[in-house]
Amino acid sequence: MRRIWLSVIAAALPSLIVPGGLSADEGMWLFNDSPANLLREKYSFSPTKDWLEHVQRSSVRFNSGGSGSFVSADGLVMTNHHVGADCIQKLGNQLKKDLMKAGFQANTHDEELKCVDEELNVLVSIEDVTERVNAAVKPDVSPPEAQKARRAVINTIEKDSLDKTKLRSDVVTLYNGGGYHLYRYKKYTDVRMVFAPEKAAAFFGGDPDNFEYPRFDLDVCFFRVYEDGKPARIEHYLRWSKDGCQDGELIFVSGHPGRTSRLDTIDHLEFLRDTVFPLALNVIRRREVLLKNYGDRSSENARRAEDELFGYQNARKAVLGMLAGLQDPTIMDRKRADEKALRDKVAADAKLKQSYADAWDQVAASLTAYKDIYLQSYLLEQPGGGGFRSGAFNSELFQKARMLIRLADESRKPNAERLHEYAEAGLESLKQRLFSTAEIYPDLEIVKLGDSLGMLIELLGAKNDLVEKVLSGKSPQERATELVLGSKLADPDVRRKLAEGGQKAIEESKDSMLELARLVDAPARAIRKTYEESVDEPQRQAYSRLAQARFAVYGKGIYPDATFTLRLAFGQVKGYTERGQQIQWATTLGGTYKHAQAHGNKVPFELARSWIERKDRIKFDTPFNFVSTADIIGGNSGSPVINRDAEVVGLIFDGNIQSLVLDFIYTDEQARAVSVHSAGIIEALRSVYNAEALVTELLRKK
Amino acid sequence: MRRIWLSVIAAALPSLIVPGGLSADEGMWLFNDSPANLLREKYSFSPTKDWLEHVQRSSVRFNSGGSGSFVSADGLVMTNHHVGADCIQKLGNQLKKDLMKAGFQANTHDEELKCVDEELNVLVSIEDVTERVNAAVKPDVSPPEAQKARRAVINTIEKDSLDKTKLRSDVVTLYNGGGYHLYRYKKYTDVRMVFAPEKAAAFFGGDPDNFEYPRFDLDVCFFRVYEDGKPARIEHYLRWSKDGCQDGELIFVSGHPGRTSRLDTIDHLEFLRDTVFPLALNVIRRREVLLKNYGDRSSENARRAEDELFGYQNARKAVLGMLAGLQDPTIMDRKRADEKALRDKVAADAKLKQSYADAWDQVAASLTAYKDIYLQSYLLEQPGGGGFRSGAFNSELFQKARMLIRLADESRKPNAERLHEYAEAGLESLKQRLFSTAEIYPDLEIVKLGDSLGMLIELLGAKNDLVEKVLSGKSPQERATELVLGSKLADPDVRRKLAEGGQKAIEESKDSMLELARLVDAPARAIRKTYEESVDEPQRQAYSRLAQARFAVYGKGIYPDATFTLRLAFGQVKGYTERGQQIQWATTLGGTYKHAQAHGNKVPFELARSWIERKDRIKFDTPFNFVSTADIIGGNSGSPVINRDAEVVGLIFDGNIQSLVLDFIYTDEQARAVSVHSAGIIEALRSVYNAEALVTELLRKK
Repeated sequence: MRRIWLSVIAAALPSLIVPGGLSADEGMWLFNDSPANLLREKYSFSPTKDWLEHVQRSSVRFNSGGSGSFVSADGLVMTNHHVGADCIQKLGNQLKKDLMKAGFQANTHDEELKCVDEELNVLVSIEDVTERVNAAVKPDVSPPEAQKARRAVINTIEKDSLDKTKLRSDVVTLYNGGGYHLYRYKKYTDVRMVFAPEKAAAFFGGDPDNFEYPRFDLDVCFFRVYEDGKPARIEHYLRWSKDGCQDGELIFVSGHPGRTSRLDTIDHLEFLRDTVFPLALNVIRRREVLLKNYGDRSSENARRAEDELFGYQNARKAVLGMLAGLQDPTIMDRKRADEKALRDKVAADAKLKQSYADAWDQVAASLTAYKDIYLQSYLLEQPGGGGFRSGAFNSELFQKARMLIRLADESRKPNAERLHEYAEAGLESLKQRLFSTAEIYPDLEIVKLGDSLGMLIELLGAKNDLVEKVLSGKSPQERATELVLGSKLADPDVRRKLAEGGQKAIEESKDSMLELARLVDAPARAIRKTYEESVDEPQRQAYSRLAQARFAVYGKGIYPDATFTLRLAFGQVKGYTERGQQIQWATTLGGTYKHAQAHGNKVPFELARSWIERKDRIKFDTPFNFVSTADIIGGNSGSPVINRDAEVVGLIFDGNIQSLVLDFIYTDEQARAVSVHSAGIIEALRSVYNAEALVTELLRKK
Repeated sequence: MRRIWLSVIAAALPSLIVPGGLSADEGMWLFNDSPANLLREKYSFSPTKDWLEHVQRSSVRFNSGGSGSFVSADGLVMTNHHVGADCIQKLGNQLKKDLMKAGFQANTHDEELKCVDEELNVLVSIEDVTERVNAAVKPDVSPPEAQKARRAVINTIEKDSLDKTKLRSDVVTLYNGGGYHLYRYKKYTDVRMVFAPEKAAAFFGGDPDNFEYPRFDLDVCFFRVYEDGKPARIEHYLRWSKDGCQDGELIFVSGHPGRTSRLDTIDHLEFLRDTVFPLALNVIRRREVLLKNYGDRSSENARRAEDELFGYQNARKAVLGMLAGLQDPTIMDRKRADEKALRDKVAADAKLKQSYADAWDQVAASLTAYKDIYLQSYLLEQPGGGGFRSGAFNSELFQKARMLIRLADESRKPNAERLHEYAEAGLESLKQRLFSTAEIYPDLEIVKLGDSLGMLIELLGAKNDLVEKVLSGKSPQERATELVLGSKLADPDVRRKLAEGGQKAIEESKDSMLELARLVDAPARAIRKTYEESVDEPQRQAYSRLAQARFAVYGKGIYPDATFTLRLAFGQVKGYTERGQQIQWATTLGGTYKHAQAHGNKVPFELARSWIERKDRIKFDTPFNFVSTADIIGGNSGSPVINRDAEVVGLIFDGNIQSLVLDFIYTDEQARAVSVHSAGIIEALRSVYNAEALVTELLRKK
């Protein structure tokens, strides 16, 4: 599944630019730098400015880690079930009902359920601020000085923009330093659930079928955004295509690919292969097994852990696929050849050589510095997921405690000097998370924290000073129990009062988890400082130079690596060949029943009851899932697939197993994006779910 | 479950002696050095020589990793279902039937099914050969010389004994060098399956209930040994107790505990905590997830991987429990206090000090040497499981290939100089394994080998010379595929012909897996040599001195650490208190239904069909599972629990979660052995399975 898997490894994946020679349907393009020439040359299609703006404004980002789109004038949003799962899970917790299992359907607006803490973003404008950022960072200052200046100017640009426009304002680093763009978003925080099928239908085939094709998944759900308590009026939304797409058709994907690393230097790829991914996989498998075990003890446990467990299973397949790519000499040889070609061209030109020839070594040096602190950084303060996380403290309560402490600390500093996630521009979204009323289960917290404290001992050693302080003479299990039971932070009102009380209230609190977070804060900040000054800043500078070298050698007209911001991809609806077999472009609704039968109708191949009961009503030959060559990656989950007329013809929900190398390199030989077909969605909504009102809203032309 | 989990970590767990002050019912006693005094003092019971011999000869070792006992004059053997599972699984493979799921019942001798490659051992005699071994190793020779001399004398003693008695002859190292005993076994290799319940009944509660209590498991199965095609006539077998045991009763356990590490030095325990267990757990979880995924793809896959997957799940819980023990300061502080007490006493006596004071440091030095090669050793040649294994080549075919190559190589050397597992005395058992007709599935082999080759890259690095040679420019998946598909070693006839052809046939063969094993053989042997000379031999010498120090300070009357050889434990049937709740000594058959209901009757708490259909016939208040204070550990699975009259009152099948620290330290506060009650077995056989003939055979007095 193509949901973003930010939390576990995200570290060390810089955003970069692509190699010179673009393949076929390659590219995750900026909306302000679209692939117009490519499209004209290859498909005789020229997207107009209006077309681009319409698609951009119809696209939605789910901050829980996916993409979506407006599909009606009344604020209806379409995304994947597995993107909506975060919201479905939390609503289920609140209602003490298994909504993942049962599905949900609102027949009137009144029945639509408000999500606990969802935030949707719609990209309103993009402004190039590269010059302003670069002007603030004086040349020839030390990395710490550069890092400080860069943070200051970014915090300031974001706050100025927020003050002026009242829009969420994020400075996005593109080409990892080659460019800085200011993205302004309209935010929606009143998001209500309209329709979700049963997980058995949405994730039919479960983990075994995840990242596989052919597929038979109704991986869709619908939300509605509200403003002032009423369905929001939406100007830009995507109309529904009458018939959906056909084999061979040109399609577009507008969504938020999370991360790619296509122009990592070879040293950097090896760092991922040798250091980042192996540790990540050990942690992912560890937590997968832990949550599976917790869930096995009762159906209520299983329900509580479900979405998080899926996250790890999904990440495990994704990272395994990426690691397999890096362990494949064919792929590495191609990457080496690409790097050599650019290095040779730079070396052959005196001016280029002077400016850029040592940039690769500068990346390598930053990685050497990173290696020294990687384990500590992973455990205490690991970049990723739009902020920094602590692998050693796998606990919601700990995260809340850290946010409270830092919010109080940082709020006292001038905006320009704050840690980026505590700067003014981001505070509203941060508080939305901090004060979320989402349920926190003490038993699950103890299991997770106990395990990660054990990991802390394993990785830093029992005799490490900090480890001894954290464990405080207890076993991991004992310590986790006392920490979780000794904290009142599960109550959002308690968190709100502490935040309102500021520094003084926080310091006076004897809450066990606050005390732990306080204990860890200084070493975590120290590691972060080292990371930002000795790894991130030099790497930014080096990759910025590499980007310039690439521009100089290959010219412009290239796209930056993915950054979980809006991008436009394109491609053809197209099957492929695997082990000598032709894999058709689409499956059908009828195929679902055969697929179930072939797997003995057993979980996760057991059909939802609704699909069994209404089998006779379904038009079996309706296209259900289909594949295309569009260039997508994790984070694209829920992206609309549209035709030349910007009509919905499908919904991205996965990539096949061969697509996992897209992290490093584009290929259209076998790699495919997997989508739900628009016709399959309508047919299922009608015949299986009797969702006539929803269908009418989707098909309404005005 | 208390099956031995030799394969994954067994390295680095030396067999040692226990601390001076014995707790309550502590001890895994040698049959030739029984705890007669303890029993007399505490329980006024004095086992006679005849009693001991009768129990010894009624006990059976399953070489696949567990214990059992003779329970009729006609060769009937009782053990756990999960010990028999290896045989059940392989028979199922052969018959292409899911015997694990369906269970099995032979109504006549003709219907009994011959196991594919099972070997049972019955201990016939024990002879102390310490003096002969020690005399062969001259004092003050270098470790390599000592190691060579020790191997030579052990190989020779075993061969002499085999020639003389025709009995399987193993020299067992006790007190890790404090003593050497020659164990002679009668071997049975014609072992036939008589009765096995459905896995749903045997392993009711599955992984969630594993290592838990209260329990409701019919974890029993029956085999019969044959000689000359007829049921073997057995002189010593255990009679069935009329009523089974009661609360508070003295009971005995005769079985084969695998490994304990109760007198590891603190340095050694820290080595386990910091190096051995963390790596082992990463590998266990990795393979658990791998096999789970493979199994999820189809029910046939699930069947193929079932027993192996269980092994990893079981090992994961066991090792997690042990690691938790070592990460618990309370336990480590007790171990430190024990060590300090002995060191202080040694230091206080000039003569002891002179002889033993530096032995702890000698252990530490051996561990420092081990650390340097641990990873390589783990991957290429790792001691454990009664031989040496290769973590990097998780493949049956590879293991067979290595055996073929080494068998040819070693056979040309004088017996005294051979690697121990290729010395004359063990060849017959080795060939039983090498020529086993057990099914080898290519698809599963590819999955396992591909994953472990990936691990090899992760752990040694892609640029490592050997890694490059092994991968041969391919990705792990590609290489595994070509290795497995390019080998004919899955065919036992091919293996037999190659073995018969000797060195020449092996060298000329172009079999892909033989070529890989050949490529790896030299570095693997080199690592083993370093291990044996720089780690094992110095450690043996150091622990031997520690044993002598302990004898000198605390006197004799202590037991050696477990060595997967026959031991006698004793204890009381007794409940315990957990989180303020009294846990009763026994559960009942009727409780099974409540337990199923409490878990929604869902897998793994779904009742077997037979138990649903015959619910009305079952006497609900019959005791089903019970707990006792007997000192057991992995390998004791299937051990008979007997009363003072040596009658069967139960069958060990597990320990509770609190018992996992027994690896390091005995405690009877909460740690308990978990058994099936003899009355529950009879009632289930009668009422659920209509197994009247089997019941009659069990209850027959003569």
